[in-house]
Amino acid sequence: MDHLPNRAGPDVPLVDRIAAANMEAVSRLRTAAPALTGVCVARDIIPELADRVLLHAGPPTTLDALCGPMRGAVHGALIYEGWARSPDESETLLKTGAIRLRCSHDFGVVGPMAGVISASMPLFEVRDPAHGTVSYAPINEGVGVALRFGAYDETVINRLRWIETVLAPALHRALHHLDAVRLVPLIGRALTMGDELHQRNIGATGLLFRILAPALVVDSLPAATLASIFGFLAENDQFFLNLAMAAAKATLESVRAIPYSTIVTAMSRNGVEFGIRISGLGDQWFTAPAPVPSGLFFPGFTADDANPDMGDSAIVETLGLGGFAMAAAPAVAGFLGLNSVEEATTMTRTMGEITLSQSPHFRIPALGGDGVPQAIDLRRVVNLEITPVINTGIAHRRAGVGQIGAGVARAPLRAFQDALRAFASRYADRAQSGR
Amino acid sequence: MDHLPNRAGPDVPLVDRIAAANMEAVSRLRTAAPALTGVCVARDIIPELADRVLLHAGPPTTLDALCGPMRGAVHGALIYEGWARSPDESETLLKTGAIRLRCSHDFGVVGPMAGVISASMPLFEVRDPAHGTVSYAPINEGVGVALRFGAYDETVINRLRWIETVLAPALHRALHHLDAVRLVPLIGRALTMGDELHQRNIGATGLLFRILAPALVVDSLPAATLASIFGFLAENDQFFLNLAMAAAKATLESVRAIPYSTIVTAMSRNGVEFGIRISGLGDQWFTAPAPVPSGLFFPGFTADDANPDMGDSAIVETLGLGGFAMAAAPAVAGFLGLNSVEEATTMTRTMGEITLSQSPHFRIPALGGDGVPQAIDLRRVVNLEITPVINTGIAHRRAGVGQIGAGVARAPLRAFQDALRAFASRYADRAQSGR
Repeated sequence: MDHLPNRAGPDVPLVDRIAAANMEAVSRLRTAAPALTGVCVARDIIPELADRVLLHAGPPTTLDALCGPMRGAVHGALIYEGWARSPDESETLLKTGAIRLRCSHDFGVVGPMAGVISASMPLFEVRDPAHGTVSYAPINEGVGVALRFGAYDETVINRLRWIETVLAPALHRALHHLDAVRLVPLIGRALTMGDELHQRNIGATGLLFRILAPALVVDSLPAATLASIFGFLAENDQFFLNLAMAAAKATLESVRAIPYSTIVTAMSRNGVEFGIRISGLGDQWFTAPAPVPSGLFFPGFTADDANPDMGDSAIVETLGLGGFAMAAAPAVAGFLGLNSVEEATTMTRTMGEITLSQSPHFRIPALGGDGVPQAIDLRRVVNLEITPVINTGIAHRRAGVGQIGAGVARAPLRAFQDALRAFASRYADRAQSGR
Repeated sequence: MDHLPNRAGPDVPLVDRIAAANMEAVSRLRTAAPALTGVCVARDIIPELADRVLLHAGPPTTLDALCGPMRGAVHGALIYEGWARSPDESETLLKTGAIRLRCSHDFGVVGPMAGVISASMPLFEVRDPAHGTVSYAPINEGVGVALRFGAYDETVINRLRWIETVLAPALHRALHHLDAVRLVPLIGRALTMGDELHQRNIGATGLLFRILAPALVVDSLPAATLASIFGFLAENDQFFLNLAMAAAKATLESVRAIPYSTIVTAMSRNGVEFGIRISGLGDQWFTAPAPVPSGLFFPGFTADDANPDMGDSAIVETLGLGGFAMAAAPAVAGFLGLNSVEEATTMTRTMGEITLSQSPHFRIPALGGDGVPQAIDLRRVVNLEITPVINTGIAHRRAGVGQIGAGVARAPLRAFQDALRAFASRYADRAQSGR
């Protein structure tokens, strides 16, 4: 390992190599400084999108294997791009094989729920100058029916167009008037405001709003345009979620491939499979069937309607937020089906069992200022049989319906067991041969 | 008691009359619905201000008795109004007797710290349609040197002028574009965001900002004006404090004079004396020397520099917020000198010993959703010798310096003992004579 020269050499035991690699990983997580730097258009970052490629959340999948809500989001994206005029035309187009899917994580992109991203969609750009990483996330669509939950009606498409043509350019210009918006202190502050940065982002959204608003008015946009922008931001308590995801992704990109490290660098779900990546194993996915979240359902819906867990948003748990930070957010615990403040505290403490560190930046006042548990260790997950918790929205299993609830999903142990076996086979051999 | 006819009559024991009166008081506190309705100019509400009258915080006082920071704020107000050009001129003017002081509580007005209000200052107007009450509070000046802490330099005066000529008219117009901003749900939500609404208002400020921003842009103000307004709002985490105070005052106005009620309706301090009012005793003040808060000081200052406790802001504790809601705000507990989350929880629980109710609207997630302790009972305070806690800023004792720290003050027992004696003498006699 060239970044740990004093511990290199054929005689170093595997356990020490792992310890050194994980220490390096923890150090990078602690020194990351992701900041919101701009808004760009997806095709400018990922040219192949223009060639009828769509990104999707979770580990790689195929058109044949798509769950209902992700299929609905694909219909919506094709209609939004003008590549189809209806769900029927979209189905026909999909059968021709003209549309290809790619896993968004491979491009440093993370999208909530279906996470379907097409060429014309604007993306937030988050850069970490400390480690030279960059990540992207779409702009949150707001509450109600939304593409990310598999809805594709006219409201959804029109909102996507408004985001593309009005909101995104205004946000991009506003960010030009600002220094890069440093997301670590902002998230740290939001944790003191009852956010866990997954199912509750109201504090962070308010803080971001206060930063953006003075810059949004600089360019003398028409009053009606400004009012529509501020109205949209004012009505969406979850606006910051996608930036929390991008901040987590940019941070975790810095530990994407550290040889010997057992740190989990991504957790994601495509609505069928749950997948993880491990630092020492690079970009390989280890998957198991996605769990159905347990939680609370909106009136008229039950667990029978629920799609299995979906979305790249578990990247925030991978960094120690969301379910890992549940003790910071007692107000959302009930919404997610927890019964008491103590359960929320226990959840955070339990995640401390499978992590190697506490964040020095993300602290929980209710725990006396303890940092959130950070750096999930694959070995601990498997040895203790404690898998990560993920706070999550719940989509209807049929295309076109949308969100029906929220709750907590438990990552499937099998993915971690498979990953540990792969890790052992790769590194035990290498250590023995002195490589 | 004409509002409790079924319990009236000469044969009702005093203890039952008190219970019925307090039940009525609690009911009014629970049904109050204060809302921000506009911004007005102080002299339009209180015409005598134009005749060289100034309002001040706390129980009534005189020019001779003013503490240093309140004297500084008086200098600032006279310079701001153009009635003096310098502190020296102000001192000379004060000696002529041309300036008179009035207690702001007598006009339904509450001001933080010195609470000095002069004719030209804009005031928030808060109305409660449920009980027909109204209250007013000045617009928060923001951080740093400020009139309310006794500073009066050019920065302070210029900021007051900008608030008068730019911010206040814009806020007033914005409020015309909105329905009245209901403050009870807003405060309830802020409590779930780590605010206690006295020394921490960052959540409430963000929520208010998101409500106001879309309305502020409607009138096509120049970009530079809008940017200065949004910049000011963005930099002041305590902006909402004055509205929390006005909401509390409007609510408590509904219980200002209920015969036989032992509920505390106001707590306030003028930097020399601490005073309370009791519902059954109407507008009479009961005072004792103001305590010096214990807490933390900014670098370079110590308790020796501290002025005794000052300001109308204890009105938020009178409603069950601030120190009473400390368990909601563990992030601010350390800033105020508390040592642990448990101390914050204990503080809220202890205040539950001297109150008759828990608010159904103001709930604390960390306490499993328990409401804040509300309706301070004079009898319990005296019998248990537990006096209210007040979260507070600390001013330097000299005029012109400003804030030097923050902490917790404990209301002096003597004021409550005197009030209970007065209550007993008034109502015991009346009950015995059948009046």
